[in-house]
Amino acid sequence: MIPALEKPEWIAVDWGTTHLRAWAMGRANEVLDFANSDDGMSNLTPDAFEPALIRLVSHWLGTGKTLIIACGMVGSRQGWAEAPYRAVPCVAQSGNLIRALCGDPRLDMRIIPGVKQASPADVMRGEETQIAGYIAQNPDFDGVLCLPGTHSKWVHISAKEIVSFRTFMTGEMFDLIGTGSVLRHSIAPAGWDQPAFLEAMSETLSRPEQIAARLFSLRAESLLNDQDPATARARLSGLLIGMELAAAKPYWLGQSVALIGAATLTQTYASALTELGAAPRVAEGSAMTQAGLISAYETMKAPL
Amino acid sequence: MIPALEKPEWIAVDWGTTHLRAWAMGRANEVLDFANSDDGMSNLTPDAFEPALIRLVSHWLGTGKTLIIACGMVGSRQGWAEAPYRAVPCVAQSGNLIRALCGDPRLDMRIIPGVKQASPADVMRGEETQIAGYIAQNPDFDGVLCLPGTHSKWVHISAKEIVSFRTFMTGEMFDLIGTGSVLRHSIAPAGWDQPAFLEAMSETLSRPEQIAARLFSLRAESLLNDQDPATARARLSGLLIGMELAAAKPYWLGQSVALIGAATLTQTYASALTELGAAPRVAEGSAMTQAGLISAYETMKAPL
Repeated sequence: MIPALEKPEWIAVDWGTTHLRAWAMGRANEVLDFANSDDGMSNLTPDAFEPALIRLVSHWLGTGKTLIIACGMVGSRQGWAEAPYRAVPCVAQSGNLIRALCGDPRLDMRIIPGVKQASPADVMRGEETQIAGYIAQNPDFDGVLCLPGTHSKWVHISAKEIVSFRTFMTGEMFDLIGTGSVLRHSIAPAGWDQPAFLEAMSETLSRPEQIAARLFSLRAESLLNDQDPATARARLSGLLIGMELAAAKPYWLGQSVALIGAATLTQTYASALTELGAAPRVAEGSAMTQAGLISAYETMKAPL
Repeated sequence: MIPALEKPEWIAVDWGTTHLRAWAMGRANEVLDFANSDDGMSNLTPDAFEPALIRLVSHWLGTGKTLIIACGMVGSRQGWAEAPYRAVPCVAQSGNLIRALCGDPRLDMRIIPGVKQASPADVMRGEETQIAGYIAQNPDFDGVLCLPGTHSKWVHISAKEIVSFRTFMTGEMFDLIGTGSVLRHSIAPAGWDQPAFLEAMSETLSRPEQIAARLFSLRAESLLNDQDPATARARLSGLLIGMELAAAKPYWLGQSVALIGAATLTQTYASALTELGAAPRVAEGSAMTQAGLISAYETMKAPL
C-alpha cells in the first residue's frame, strides 16, 4: 500500500507566462512532491488563477490553511493579484509578500513582488526570486548575474542588493525570427554549429549595426549556397547573443559573472563569454527559483 | 450599354508573396484595366499558379495567345517556374525572360528573373523590376536606390547597372516585434509620433548594439510610465530604421539617393534621411513596378 503523502508545511509556486510549477515542501524545506501544468498567466483570466492552483495541488491540502508562496507573472497586473514592483536599489529578497484574496479557506496565498528600475525603464518578475536564491547560496557574491532566456537579464549585485539591471529581448527575437520570419525556411528547429555560433557572435560584437543585413544573408546563403540549416540556427543565435553581449559589455568586462538558467542556454552563453575572456560560473535556473522561494519562506517566518 | 473591353495587347503582372496584381495593357502601353487578388505565392502550390491567374484575367483573354510578363516571387523555386537569378553587376533590365509552361493555349507566360549577389550573399525578386522602371524614367541616374519594405533593399546604381546591394529585414522585424512579441501589449496598431521616431532613430544610429535593451524598454515604459502606444510604435520604427541607416551609411552618406515604395513608408524614410542631411528623391512603388514591366515588354519586343 502506498503511504499517504505527508501534508506539506507550505507550497512553493513558480507561476510564469506559460507554466505553473508547484513543490510540496516539508518542515526542513525538503521537496515532498512536485506538480506542474500549462496554466500559465497567458491562458488565464484573473478569476481562473485560484481554480487552476486548486486543480494542481488540492491533494496536498489538509483541513487547515496551507501557506503558498508564489513568484512570477502571477503577480502582474494581468495576474491573480498585482504585487507592485520594488524599485532598485533593493535587497534581492523581499520581506513584503502580497496577500492574494482566496475563495477557498484552505489557501493562504502570498506573492513575491517584481523589481523595477526608473531609468533606463526596466522591470523583472520571477528573476528576482532566482537572484535571491543565488545570493542565499552565495552570500558573499559581488558581481554580475546574467539570466539568459526569453527576456535576458543582466543584473549588478553588490552587498546582496540589486543595484541595476538591463533586459534584452534576445530569446524572444530568436524565436520570432527563427519560426515567424522568412528565415524559418532556412533555419533548423534544432542542431548546432559551435564555430559558426562563435563567428557570428564576433561579427555583431564588432559591427552590431549590420545585424538586420546579416540576418537576411542567412536566407540568401541558404538559397544560393545551400547553407546547412543547423549552421544557420547557430549563426542566428550568435548574431543575437553577440548583440546582447555588445550592449552588456559594461556588465561582463572585468566582472565576476554568474549565469542562471536552463542548462543548454547557460552553456551557450558560457561558451561565448569564455571566448571573450570571461570565466562565468553557472547555476541551474529552476534550482535557483526553488532556493529563492525557500529564502522568501524563511524571511517571512523569521522573528522580526 | 457598357462597351466591351478592348482586348489587351499584353498583360503586366506583379506576383509577390502575398499578392497578385495584373494590368491589362493597350498598344501604347496604356492601362486598360486592373485586377488583383490575394493569391500570393505563399497561398499557392506550384500547380495552382495557372488557375489563379486565369481566375483573375480570363475576361481579358481573346481567342489567340496573350503575352503575360510577370515579376516577383512567381519566379522563385516555390513559384510557377524558377527564373534563375542573374548575378551582379548586371543591367537592371533583363532581356532574358523565362518562359513558364502553361496548360491553357491562350497564355504566353514570361517571368522576369531576380538578381543575386555572391558576397555578401543576397537576393532580390521583384525589386529589380522597380529598379528597371526607375532607370527607364531616369536614364541618367547614378547613385543609390532605397526600396524600404518587408525586406528593405539598398542598391548601388551606376551606368544603368546594379553594382551591389544589401537587404535589411527591417519591415519584417517591425511586424514580428510589434504584433508577435510581448511589446504588442504596448504598441498601437496605428498612430505616430515624429519627434519620438527621430529620437529613437538617432539612439540606434549612435549606439546600435543597445537595440535589444531599448526594445524591452518600450514595454517597461508602458508598464511604469503609461507610455502612449502611438509613441511606442514610432519609437519601435525609429529604433529599427536607425539600425538600417547605421548599416547602410556607405550607401546614403554623400550619395544621390532615391526612395521607391509605398507613400507612407518612403515619407518616413525621407524624413529620417533628411534629418541626417541627405536629400532623397521619392518615387511611388507600384508606378515603378508598372514602368519596369513596360520596360521589360519593350526590351523583349525590340529588334535584336
